[in-house]
Amino acid sequence: MTSHLPRPADFAPPPDAAVRAHWHEADRAARRERLASLRRRLTSAGLDAYLGVRPEHMRYLTGFALAAGEEKVAGHSGQFLVGLEEVIVLADSRYQIQARREASEARIEPVGYDLPARWPALLASLGARRVAVEAGFISQAAWQRLAAAAPAVELVPVEGWVEESRARKEPAEIERIRAACAVVDRALASLLPEIRPGVTERELALRLEWLIRTGGAEALAFDVACLAGPEAALPHGSPGERPIRSGEVLLFDVGAQVDGYRSDMTRTLFVGEPRARDLALYELVSRAQAAAFRALELSLEPGGARPDGRTTDAVARAVIEAAGHGEHFGHGTGHGIGLATHELPSLSRTAPTTPLPSPTVFSLEPGVYLEGETGVRIEDLVLYDRDGRRVERLTRFPREVLVVGG
Amino acid sequence: MTSHLPRPADFAPPPDAAVRAHWHEADRAARRERLASLRRRLTSAGLDAYLGVRPEHMRYLTGFALAAGEEKVAGHSGQFLVGLEEVIVLADSRYQIQARREASEARIEPVGYDLPARWPALLASLGARRVAVEAGFISQAAWQRLAAAAPAVELVPVEGWVEESRARKEPAEIERIRAACAVVDRALASLLPEIRPGVTERELALRLEWLIRTGGAEALAFDVACLAGPEAALPHGSPGERPIRSGEVLLFDVGAQVDGYRSDMTRTLFVGEPRARDLALYELVSRAQAAAFRALELSLEPGGARPDGRTTDAVARAVIEAAGHGEHFGHGTGHGIGLATHELPSLSRTAPTTPLPSPTVFSLEPGVYLEGETGVRIEDLVLYDRDGRRVERLTRFPREVLVVGG
Repeated sequence: MTSHLPRPADFAPPPDAAVRAHWHEADRAARRERLASLRRRLTSAGLDAYLGVRPEHMRYLTGFALAAGEEKVAGHSGQFLVGLEEVIVLADSRYQIQARREASEARIEPVGYDLPARWPALLASLGARRVAVEAGFISQAAWQRLAAAAPAVELVPVEGWVEESRARKEPAEIERIRAACAVVDRALASLLPEIRPGVTERELALRLEWLIRTGGAEALAFDVACLAGPEAALPHGSPGERPIRSGEVLLFDVGAQVDGYRSDMTRTLFVGEPRARDLALYELVSRAQAAAFRALELSLEPGGARPDGRTTDAVARAVIEAAGHGEHFGHGTGHGIGLATHELPSLSRTAPTTPLPSPTVFSLEPGVYLEGETGVRIEDLVLYDRDGRRVERLTRFPREVLVVGG
Repeated sequence: MTSHLPRPADFAPPPDAAVRAHWHEADRAARRERLASLRRRLTSAGLDAYLGVRPEHMRYLTGFALAAGEEKVAGHSGQFLVGLEEVIVLADSRYQIQARREASEARIEPVGYDLPARWPALLASLGARRVAVEAGFISQAAWQRLAAAAPAVELVPVEGWVEESRARKEPAEIERIRAACAVVDRALASLLPEIRPGVTERELALRLEWLIRTGGAEALAFDVACLAGPEAALPHGSPGERPIRSGEVLLFDVGAQVDGYRSDMTRTLFVGEPRARDLALYELVSRAQAAAFRALELSLEPGGARPDGRTTDAVARAVIEAAGHGEHFGHGTGHGIGLATHELPSLSRTAPTTPLPSPTVFSLEPGVYLEGETGVRIEDLVLYDRDGRRVERLTRFPREVLVVGG
């Protein structure tokens, strides 16, 4: 049990302007290879254009970045076409200025809600006849309307093409995920002295959000989860007006976004004197996470097999199952992270058995949930870099038992 | 020009627990009629089930509410099936407890990512053979997988069914939009004394968000826009690290969420001595908005024609076009609002010419944007209730010229 609480100064400071300028330049340079990679895939599939509708892909391939949720009111703005020679970004009057600023290498076309009307001319301008379409993200209705607007053009459903590229992280992408982890590490360390019985989950969640968003992040990666006592048994619960009480666990699941890239961390703290039941669960979950991490390390030793998402999940799960809590660990062990909070690779019972990409970043987050009683989850982001022969926790906040508000 | 700035106490206080309990009960009662209405539509189309995938519909029809953005990581959790007798809500282990709590009248099925595998059995349990599917929201890939999983079941694309119901607002829905407006009115009034040259857009946006989220709202409706000077020309811009300066306009576009329901307001303030150019634009935009509002009022007088979204837009647009700024008003005049920030009805050049629903709530938000120079938008939410013979601004924050930070 730790008596020394971590302090903000234990963690890296937020990125300065020079670092951000470097990321900006790295992205601009990387987009050429990202697009070249997509075009090679198009060509080898006999296709001549790619219609992208997923906001993260737009940012990755064009530089144009909508704010979170903005795609719901943007119509087709922000969607894009990659031809073999040219990139087109769609942007209606609301987004024209921003698109020209951020997607400076693309042709900006003033399309808002009328894509079907413009579709034949846009394809003709690219000389495209067989178009890959992000079938997992375009709606069935939009697909039908595009098909009807240009019957001579073949729409070919593709899934996961850009996701596969995104799963392999460039150095400047890893730097940003690392920075997003450090913002959260510092913010949670700043919050610790403010945790006292009587304060509500919602107050702590708001305060932590404030510390993150004034501490180097442009946004949260997702709403802060702050769940006390029995509420910690809801793996995706929301903070409520419940005052926290001594003797309860206090679970934070929290992520930041730094220059588009996300972090994701869960810590389960103890408010006042821990209960033996909760300590035992904590020790179990911690062992499960350490086992998965160790298996990744061992895979880098001479003769180590390339790990996959299913076997890595199984390593953590086996620890929890052996303690009789298998049924209380309903979710997967981890997920990739980057421009989206959840992306490839997946680490779960149903994950593919193909080797993990490399270098890549994913969470390791086993948990045990006893409905109506308590819950424990411990989540770190991990860099897995096979060629670089390293497995590294990007989350630096301590994993030891921490007692707060005593 | 106003010298009296509005104060927080000018506006309604946030809802108390009794009001919230009333809303909860009203929803529970209303869901029966909402479902009955959907089932009548199913029956008259010869269909026997409805697959819903849009989070707002899930909340409206079942009571189960995902947090904003949660649907991106929830898989099929939160999607639902309305049969002629029964409602099924899909929820994997992460959401089981919450779903049972919130959608207490539904059957909860533990489906996370494997809907195609469970699809035939789920339909059989409802006795369904012809299923309406939300084609505007389900992905093309998901549609194809469901079609392949149960080839004997007919999938029928439908769009706008639930949206049409949602456009007509129940009394308890209007109360919540009104409450969400008041939270923002109060918060912006609280912020006014803190606006000074030198403070950044981002600082003001964060502070305003804090006031909203500690002032009765559970969330923002969307990220706060706070745009100074030339940045106000970006209708969907994001606040930056730019210090605001005397002599510039300062545009806030901001909305709150209260018990799921949204508000949306834009105010363009003047920092220090207004420039004549900006005052003239303000007066123009204000006249355009007033003209649309007056046209709605006139439609309620004896013999008044039922207004539609296209003609209401045209009334505001004509004022701006007559001043030679038509090309600087690129977006529509307004949009419906409720569980989503943008919903039916639409008020724009391409809006349908069918009569506006009633009672309904929408924004009136004309704007003029001079790229690189300045921008002005004024946005209020308006209740249009034809049978109740009233057109009422739910936004109460003053629309007069307000000078701050002087």
